[in-house]
Amino acid sequence: MKQYEFPSLEQLEEILQRPILAQENLDKLLLEIFLEVKNRGDEALKEYAFRYDKVKLSEIKVSEQEIKKAIDSVDQNLKDAITQAYNNIFTFHESQVEKSVKIETMPGVFCWRKSVGIDKVGLYIPGGSAPLFSTILMLAIPAKIANCKEIILCTPSDSSGKIHPAILFTANLCGITKIYKLGGIQAIAAMSLGTESVPAVYKLFGPGNQFVTAAKIFAQKYKMSIDMPAGPSEVMVVCDEFANASYVASDLLAQAEHGADSQVVLLSTSKKKIQEVLAEISIQSEQLPRKNQVLEALQHSFSILCLKENICSLINKYAPEHLILNTRFNSELIENVTNAGSIFIGEFTPESAGDYASGTNHTLPTNGYARQYSGVSVDSFVKKITYQEITAEGIKNIGKTVEIMAEAEGLLAHKNAVSIRLKQVQ
Amino acid sequence: MKQYEFPSLEQLEEILQRPILAQENLDKLLLEIFLEVKNRGDEALKEYAFRYDKVKLSEIKVSEQEIKKAIDSVDQNLKDAITQAYNNIFTFHESQVEKSVKIETMPGVFCWRKSVGIDKVGLYIPGGSAPLFSTILMLAIPAKIANCKEIILCTPSDSSGKIHPAILFTANLCGITKIYKLGGIQAIAAMSLGTESVPAVYKLFGPGNQFVTAAKIFAQKYKMSIDMPAGPSEVMVVCDEFANASYVASDLLAQAEHGADSQVVLLSTSKKKIQEVLAEISIQSEQLPRKNQVLEALQHSFSILCLKENICSLINKYAPEHLILNTRFNSELIENVTNAGSIFIGEFTPESAGDYASGTNHTLPTNGYARQYSGVSVDSFVKKITYQEITAEGIKNIGKTVEIMAEAEGLLAHKNAVSIRLKQVQ
Repeated sequence: MKQYEFPSLEQLEEILQRPILAQENLDKLLLEIFLEVKNRGDEALKEYAFRYDKVKLSEIKVSEQEIKKAIDSVDQNLKDAITQAYNNIFTFHESQVEKSVKIETMPGVFCWRKSVGIDKVGLYIPGGSAPLFSTILMLAIPAKIANCKEIILCTPSDSSGKIHPAILFTANLCGITKIYKLGGIQAIAAMSLGTESVPAVYKLFGPGNQFVTAAKIFAQKYKMSIDMPAGPSEVMVVCDEFANASYVASDLLAQAEHGADSQVVLLSTSKKKIQEVLAEISIQSEQLPRKNQVLEALQHSFSILCLKENICSLINKYAPEHLILNTRFNSELIENVTNAGSIFIGEFTPESAGDYASGTNHTLPTNGYARQYSGVSVDSFVKKITYQEITAEGIKNIGKTVEIMAEAEGLLAHKNAVSIRLKQVQ
Repeated sequence: MKQYEFPSLEQLEEILQRPILAQENLDKLLLEIFLEVKNRGDEALKEYAFRYDKVKLSEIKVSEQEIKKAIDSVDQNLKDAITQAYNNIFTFHESQVEKSVKIETMPGVFCWRKSVGIDKVGLYIPGGSAPLFSTILMLAIPAKIANCKEIILCTPSDSSGKIHPAILFTANLCGITKIYKLGGIQAIAAMSLGTESVPAVYKLFGPGNQFVTAAKIFAQKYKMSIDMPAGPSEVMVVCDEFANASYVASDLLAQAEHGADSQVVLLSTSKKKIQEVLAEISIQSEQLPRKNQVLEALQHSFSILCLKENICSLINKYAPEHLILNTRFNSELIENVTNAGSIFIGEFTPESAGDYASGTNHTLPTNGYARQYSGVSVDSFVKKITYQEITAEGIKNIGKTVEIMAEAEGLLAHKNAVSIRLKQVQ
């Protein structure tokens, strides 16, 4: 980890840059796969599964039997843990449902809005070494609460055509039955265009590698929308001289283990504490199975020693995905931080809790996008439709205003739609 | 207007297609202008203003004096109308502010979220023949309610360097003081990158021609976000045999006058009523100053005679920006329509009312995007940050769950961040 002390504003601009990721131009490959999937449907999907995931699929859709078998094979302790997390996440996300309130803006002019679930949504869950069942909870629970009519899930199988039982258990717990053994660009293409087996959806959710991310962006050309732009995960931890250095180190390492491209940032008012944390990092990282990823992530991570009064502007400038506040002045910071995805307050609030089970969502804006994006929530799965109803009295009250404004904007047919009614009611 | 009667499902797929817009590839021009603005700032902006808008600007920012002078010159009736609209729009949008509620998902585990205004937002208001002051209300009012700290507005001046007084009056009414005489791609580039005069923002709002739309999409490469993808405006009107044909015709014409690329769609259960409406359109359109645009828009517009039971699925398939329900079975439709931007209910509720003054927003998803996008609201100007605070008791309650899940996902550092705390509190 690089160490900076009281950097100037100009230096900060440089320091707080995210590591730049080499991005291949995948447009040709994307177009090819999307066209093949469009033209040849399931057949193309099976070919790509063989080419990229080394699996010969007879069926793309996971059968009921496979789901039942998987459920039986998951350890009861893990089932209980996932169920506990489900309950907490459900409780918090249910509180996000907006009640519809009818407002009478003028006598006889009624306006309201209603959250309506997006009819069809697609969830992507990456495969690979770790079965990310926690991400299913984070996407499927708000989708269910939002009342999305069709929720489909794509996740790549292993080379024998199997999906990790914990994935299937969690999907089933969330009430998802349409699960497809598809990964990578072809999964995104299938959900965007639809095939014989896979229904087309309107919005795509979920993390993925650079191919999946590029495919989601590309899918927007086909009238899809996506949850948010994706980037490597990151955490910023703020601590003062009173913090427990081993807690701070454990939080930084938890983020670093996500992958070599993760970034962890430590802000502190105490030089001594920074040294303690760095020492703890060395000790704790020795024990970690993902030590190699951790060490790579620490290469482009850093600590900043800074004055208390500069911390808030520094946080807002970086706009971290995760922000952990482990100081005696947390409440001052909470008031003034405007750019962060999710904030963890106090020494007993590790990011891991929110990653899995406390109730908040772990799909959050990275790469500085916390400046203008929210994390995934029930909001992400609904549209808010506005409604209005005007009575005869209402059009009398509002008519003149509309006529004058429409005329001033040179839109006489707009004016006429009101005038023609006013004539009748007056 | 084309007329269809009881089309089959396959025919509908064809009929309900939006007109395809010829899209030039503007990437080279966009890159050039963005680079010039980045490298040469205000100087480049002035050159482009001269090249594209035929205006020699000495100052890019509108002065206080110009604003004062404009306010004085606006007719009092128009001021009153705009102020009335302001009040209605403010009242409805204020009701969208979400209260923060702290949820205890397990004993000692507290989660909540708070809406925080996006620090810096940019509003684009097109120039041209009509001064679209109504769009300022629709963007600036929710931005103010959201507590955005910096709100800037770009709008092109006329060739003498003047901005329409109603634009300046409305901006001032909304409390916007940073107004820049910039239009087209260069305005979007300036707000995305910042120059000596123009502050950079995080999110871009507002309508525009194909150049502005393309520039907004391009700006996303510079970490901007945008309100929504833009397309030509459209309305779908549903009427039965009881509807007043002249009202229906006036609503269709109001939409058609927006521009030659607008689309208007009439659905009816009554063949006779469709004929009456078409006859009324012929009569009313004769009087309209924008008759040419209207006639062009009607070229790619159509009516569909259909069964009552098919109307709802037809609406949801088309996903109209504006939906006017003028039937005796409105309430059935309202329950089941899931894809629409804004819905106008009953014979005294013309779209014009919502375009200007009833209280709802007129910045709405077009081109079928009502399937997954909402119109602009206070939500569009905030991020919702999640917070959590876990007590010593809380970590004891949730710790085991997190440990088991983290281990099952193979993320041992995530587990350790909890274990290290559990050791201390147990």
